[in-house]
Formats: sequence, structure tokens, C-alpha cells
Amino acid sequence: MPPISAINIAGKLALFNEHWRPKVIAQMNDYQFKVVKVQGEFVWHSHADTDETFIVISGRLRIDLRNGQTDLGHIDLGPGDMTVIPKGVEHKPCATEEAHLMLVEPCGVPNTGDQGGERSAPNDVWI
Amino acid sequence: MPPISAINIAGKLALFNEHWRPKVIAQMNDYQFKVVKVQGEFVWHSHADTDETFIVISGRLRIDLRNGQTDLGHIDLGPGDMTVIPKGVEHKPCATEEAHLMLVEPCGVPNTGDQGGERSAPNDVWI
Repeated sequence: MPPISAINIAGKLALFNEHWRPKVIAQMNDYQFKVVKVQGEFVWHSHADTDETFIVISGRLRIDLRNGQTDLGHIDLGPGDMTVIPKGVEHKPCATEEAHLMLVEPCGVPNTGDQGGERSAPNDVWI
Repeated sequence: MPPISAINIAGKLALFNEHWRPKVIAQMNDYQFKVVKVQGEFVWHSHADTDETFIVISGRLRIDLRNGQTDLGHIDLGPGDMTVIPKGVEHKPCATEEAHLMLVEPCGVPNTGDQGGERSAPNDVWI
């Protein structure tokens, strides 16, 4: 059994500076909680097999949404906001200024979903 | 597909006042995000089949821990802290002053786990 401890989310975010590289801070069953710093535009991608949760810790995050050729608009998230992107929905996160996020998703989900490419980050990196 | 929207966690907590009655604010696959206001001592209980995540939004939460006859001590959580209680570990949440929490756990998990009783809250209540 891993030790049961208080995990400070902002404290974990203070341990690194790089962008778009999620770090695992906790695991519940086969789901992981990850923190990530983001700035600029990410790539359009989707996850075929799972929903994905975004929780904004600080800063602001825009997520553009589309489903194939259908523009689904976008959502704007500020501190204390969260959203769940359903599986299969293409999304593109974007932050004009640096934003700090917590993600919740099953173990092993790649950050770039179906897209791969140079923005892919290593998985299961704990901090 | 449910609408994709920004969900403000504190805004959801502002919609009710009762204690120890979790309300669902989002669902990711077969997991739910619930907000709850707590004050005072809850009952000792455990969940045989699942871990359970506590995230403190405001206030302070103490969780006493034991495993059968073994005292596992306690953890103290403040705003921005989280913890995962592993399945099978008996725990008793306690808040001297009112605290606001977000819980993450699979759909259908009863708040009192194996204990049932008068502190059991209805499940799957969305707000």
C-alpha cells in the first residue's frame, strides 16, 4: 500500500517549469491525477476510448472543440473551473498566459491522444 | 452527449448548505466528481472495492485512518490539498469548522461505505 499523505497541488506545480509535460501526483484505482503547466496552443487531438477531465488551478484555459467537420465552439475556464471532454471529441487546449492545470484520466492515456507527434510527453512520470 | 461546459466548483458549492450530502457536478467515464460540505465527525467506514479521492476546496479536513486493529494515524488537509484513501482502509473524516470538498470516486459508491446507517446519503444527486 502506498503511504497515505496530504498532497498539495500547488506545491507539486512549484517543482517544475516546463510546459505541456504532465506529472502524476496521485493514483486512484487505475486513474491518475496529473499536474501540468501550459502556455500557447496545443495540437488538435481526441481520445477514442476515454473522457478526460481538466481542472484549472490558476490562470485561464481555452479549449476549442470540434467533432469531425462540426465546429462545437469553445469553452473558457478560469481558476476553480473544471470540464470533462467526452471521448472522441476533438479538442485543442490553448492558454495565452501560463496556466496551471490538474488532469484526471485513466493510466496510460497519451497527452496527444490519436495524434502522437513531437508534442507527445512521456507517460507515468511521477513528481 | 452531455453539453460540454465550464463547471465552477465553488459556484456549485454555493448552491446548497447541508452537510455530508455529496452532489454530483461532473462525470468522466464511470467516475463522478462530487462536491460536499462537511462539519463535525463522520462515521468510521471503508470501501471494499475502490479507492476514494478527497480534494479540499476550502477549510480544513482531518481524516483518521485505521486498518482493523491497526491505528494508521491521521492526515490533515487544507485548501488545495488532496489525498487518495486506498480501498479497504477504514477512515473517519472530521472537520472542526465547515469545510468544502470535492470527492472523486466510481459511480454508485455509498458515502458510508460498508457501514450504512443514518449518515448514508442518496447517491447520484446532481447539482
